[in-house]
Amino acid sequence: MLELEKIITPTLLLDERKTRQHILTMVEKAQKPSIRLRPHFKTHQSAAIGEWFREAGVKSITCSSLQMAAYFAAHGWNDILVAFPVNIREIVLINQLAATIHLELLVESTFSVEFLDANLKAPVDIWLKIDSGAGRTGIAAANTTLAANICQMVHKSSSMHLRGILTHAGQTYHSTSPIHAVGSYQASVDLMNQMRDKLAMLGINDLEISVGDTPGCVLVDDFGKVDEIRPGNFVFFDATQAFIGTCTADEVAVAVACPIVAIHPELEKVVVYGGAIHLSSEYFLLGNQKAYGLPALLAADGWGSPIPGGYVHKLSQEHGIVHVHYEVCNSLNPGDLLAIIPAHSCITVSCLKKYLTLEGEILETMYC
Amino acid sequence: MLELEKIITPTLLLDERKTRQHILTMVEKAQKPSIRLRPHFKTHQSAAIGEWFREAGVKSITCSSLQMAAYFAAHGWNDILVAFPVNIREIVLINQLAATIHLELLVESTFSVEFLDANLKAPVDIWLKIDSGAGRTGIAAANTTLAANICQMVHKSSSMHLRGILTHAGQTYHSTSPIHAVGSYQASVDLMNQMRDKLAMLGINDLEISVGDTPGCVLVDDFGKVDEIRPGNFVFFDATQAFIGTCTADEVAVAVACPIVAIHPELEKVVVYGGAIHLSSEYFLLGNQKAYGLPALLAADGWGSPIPGGYVHKLSQEHGIVHVHYEVCNSLNPGDLLAIIPAHSCITVSCLKKYLTLEGEILETMYC
Repeated sequence: MLELEKIITPTLLLDERKTRQHILTMVEKAQKPSIRLRPHFKTHQSAAIGEWFREAGVKSITCSSLQMAAYFAAHGWNDILVAFPVNIREIVLINQLAATIHLELLVESTFSVEFLDANLKAPVDIWLKIDSGAGRTGIAAANTTLAANICQMVHKSSSMHLRGILTHAGQTYHSTSPIHAVGSYQASVDLMNQMRDKLAMLGINDLEISVGDTPGCVLVDDFGKVDEIRPGNFVFFDATQAFIGTCTADEVAVAVACPIVAIHPELEKVVVYGGAIHLSSEYFLLGNQKAYGLPALLAADGWGSPIPGGYVHKLSQEHGIVHVHYEVCNSLNPGDLLAIIPAHSCITVSCLKKYLTLEGEILETMYC
Repeated sequence: MLELEKIITPTLLLDERKTRQHILTMVEKAQKPSIRLRPHFKTHQSAAIGEWFREAGVKSITCSSLQMAAYFAAHGWNDILVAFPVNIREIVLINQLAATIHLELLVESTFSVEFLDANLKAPVDIWLKIDSGAGRTGIAAANTTLAANICQMVHKSSSMHLRGILTHAGQTYHSTSPIHAVGSYQASVDLMNQMRDKLAMLGINDLEISVGDTPGCVLVDDFGKVDEIRPGNFVFFDATQAFIGTCTADEVAVAVACPIVAIHPELEKVVVYGGAIHLSSEYFLLGNQKAYGLPALLAADGWGSPIPGGYVHKLSQEHGIVHVHYEVCNSLNPGDLLAIIPAHSCITVSCLKKYLTLEGEILETMYC
């Protein structure tokens, strides 16, 4: 049970039961078609939660930075993909990791591949980052020439082994319905298969395909022709995922307990100690209205469903301005706690750095 | 000089010369009309930078949390206002601080005042938080009845001394021109004076007025009838302030050095290692376009003016997507560094937690 009286500043609550269930659901979903689940650990960023994945049989993981990879390597993970275009300024850390674990890196330019070829001191596996529609980064899916060039350069290198082509269909996070997210996922998988086929026609064979967004991986019935999936956010979900329809709001496994510092019933708003430095400034759109999170009432056994009509409509550095109905305002007092289901759980974890489970245990992250 | 080759991950750069100049300018501006400058330390959050204020003669400071107040109290500051509606769950820390320094708290409800009266064990000064148009929190400027009630409650308490009425004209941060910000500041000061006059007619006398936004305090020629100013952001400024016209882009004293990890000349974009967890997700609007920061080239003696037409147009957890002209793209390589002038320096400091000065010195913040 939570000892609510011990919560005096914004505190990241974690529901272990929901979290473990989300892990098991994804592990089982990937097992049926024998697709490798390489979950992205950038959401939870915690060695303790990593153990729950290990208990569920997970052996391969994804990280978003080399520093994160070093943290998880120090906690016994020895098959790590860093799904971020390689930062060649970190070559010392790359070589340290490559010498001790099975390390996989992401490339998208001949420049970086040349640098790695000249500077790697231990073997790494290489993935080509492909832009399959997210428009963030990666080789354009139509640019087979560049992709083939890089593949050939990697093939010639003694320290690099070409593993395959990788994408992140980040466009699914901008979906407003499950059917939209599923369509984006499938279009992305189709593009990746077309690229694999074209590269095969150029003599580049045996490439694997790795994909990775949470909305797609949760919502599709069939992962399609892929070898690996790398969802991350599914471990907790968040208010944005509930809004897309990837999960229900009640399935979200994290919330921030925030002390109430002011109440303005006439404006239908509650002010909490919980601002941009706690929740992050990430938001989703409720129509034209930004929502930085969803409020819920809190009790010693956890938080409830979102308060109907409520949302966090503004953040300052330390303040959260929460819109709730007049009558809800009148039921609260300064000093009470309000739970805020965050808009984007990954970034909120980076802000708050540790968890308090509903059983009262503190779990640390890589930032502690 | 910066040893650029030692920068391998996103690093917060600080120009000490500009920072000290900003401090001196504000100190001198407040001296002429004999207004108390109580700078807000929530921007820099660093004991080392606090010393630069002390050297300029500053003795009174503002913090945005009791934890921040405890940090600065431990570094020799003994006159601290916590400009955030009091979080009564922190009563233990409040009493610890009140017993050792001159502590000033902010209230806006009878509930919190009753709680303080019953639980304070050492004297504190009290300010009433007034909403003078920002719409964030505080007693509505028209609600003299509530303000008078709270004043009378504070007067009766043996542990509280009523200091005055306080506001933060946060609406000036949404200005799109200096004249707009100045108008908002003046309207806010007028409202505060009207409230002081009305309270005086009810027999509540000798109230001070404290105001505090950076755009207003920087841009006005005359602070008006106020006793105290609490600007914070002026110590560094940021891209948002440059956009409003509070400063020039060249006056901004912080920038984040980000390694380039990918370049897409055909899309006129550069991808940097520097995302929401480094820069924060704060942005300002360039027309309809969100700008999470402004890019500049970096050399060993510091960063230059913003690259014409450039802006950070998208952030993920670790990625920053920077729009720059095709020819700029072609002049860069993966592994080069790009400086990003942040949209909101206060939150970026919370993300990156320490500074590297242009002289190569590391300065810590309260998060280290």
